[in-house]
Amino acid sequence: MSDCIFCKIVSGESPCYKIYEDENCLAFLDVANDFYAHTLVIPKKHYKNILDIPNSELNYVIGVLQKISKHYVENCGFDGINTINANNKCANQSVFHLHFHIIPRRNNDGLHIFPEGQNNKFDLEEVSHKLKLN
Amino acid sequence: MSDCIFCKIVSGESPCYKIYEDENCLAFLDVANDFYAHTLVIPKKHYKNILDIPNSELNYVIGVLQKISKHYVENCGFDGINTINANNKCANQSVFHLHFHIIPRRNNDGLHIFPEGQNNKFDLEEVSHKLKLN
Repeated sequence: MSDCIFCKIVSGESPCYKIYEDENCLAFLDVANDFYAHTLVIPKKHYKNILDIPNSELNYVIGVLQKISKHYVENCGFDGINTINANNKCANQSVFHLHFHIIPRRNNDGLHIFPEGQNNKFDLEEVSHKLKLN
Repeated sequence: MSDCIFCKIVSGESPCYKIYEDENCLAFLDVANDFYAHTLVIPKKHYKNILDIPNSELNYVIGVLQKISKHYVENCGFDGINTINANNKCANQSVFHLHFHIIPRRNNDGLHIFPEGQNNKFDLEEVSHKLKLN
């Protein structure tokens, strides 16, 4: 994907602040530079998001996500981790190359990562009947 | 874990609005009832979060997360998906049994799921040196 910024980072054509690299995955700091140590984990191969990546390759990415999360908590002084992922434009995906955000957290850091709920009350019985998969 | 609400849901002691079940995983609607079709995916076995679950079991959970996400987009009329996960209290984890949130999205649904960034500008070069894993 010649116009994909993450593919350019993988190929070395564009720079990044690298955290981790192996043969299939790369992790680097989000240049949004909005949360301390805000990190992205991506597969080197181009997929749009979790809706098109084969499960085995997604598992590999998740293995790296887990490895970095544990590293941050065990070795880097963070107390916890949020992971966030956006799939398709309506979900605020802005780069269309699969990525998981890691936002490392500290006790009482004052961040508001988890979305504010809405006061809508849906009929959960009806919703679950409509959506159930098995 | 006799005092864990998700373990009680797994055992059938507490009810849930079920979306999917197999031998290792369960998915059900979040009773917070704050976003339409807000869904939780959990392993049946009790782990606190991604920091203590073995990688092979996490992969299984992610397989279910991916299956449900695709089902929602392909069969249920949603246009995209956000996934969110919290690890430890400082990251706003409120039930200490691993769970992934799926928030299904629709075009122009007006939701603000992705956290508002902060204006802090960190020295990314320095941060990446401090945190890098290899």
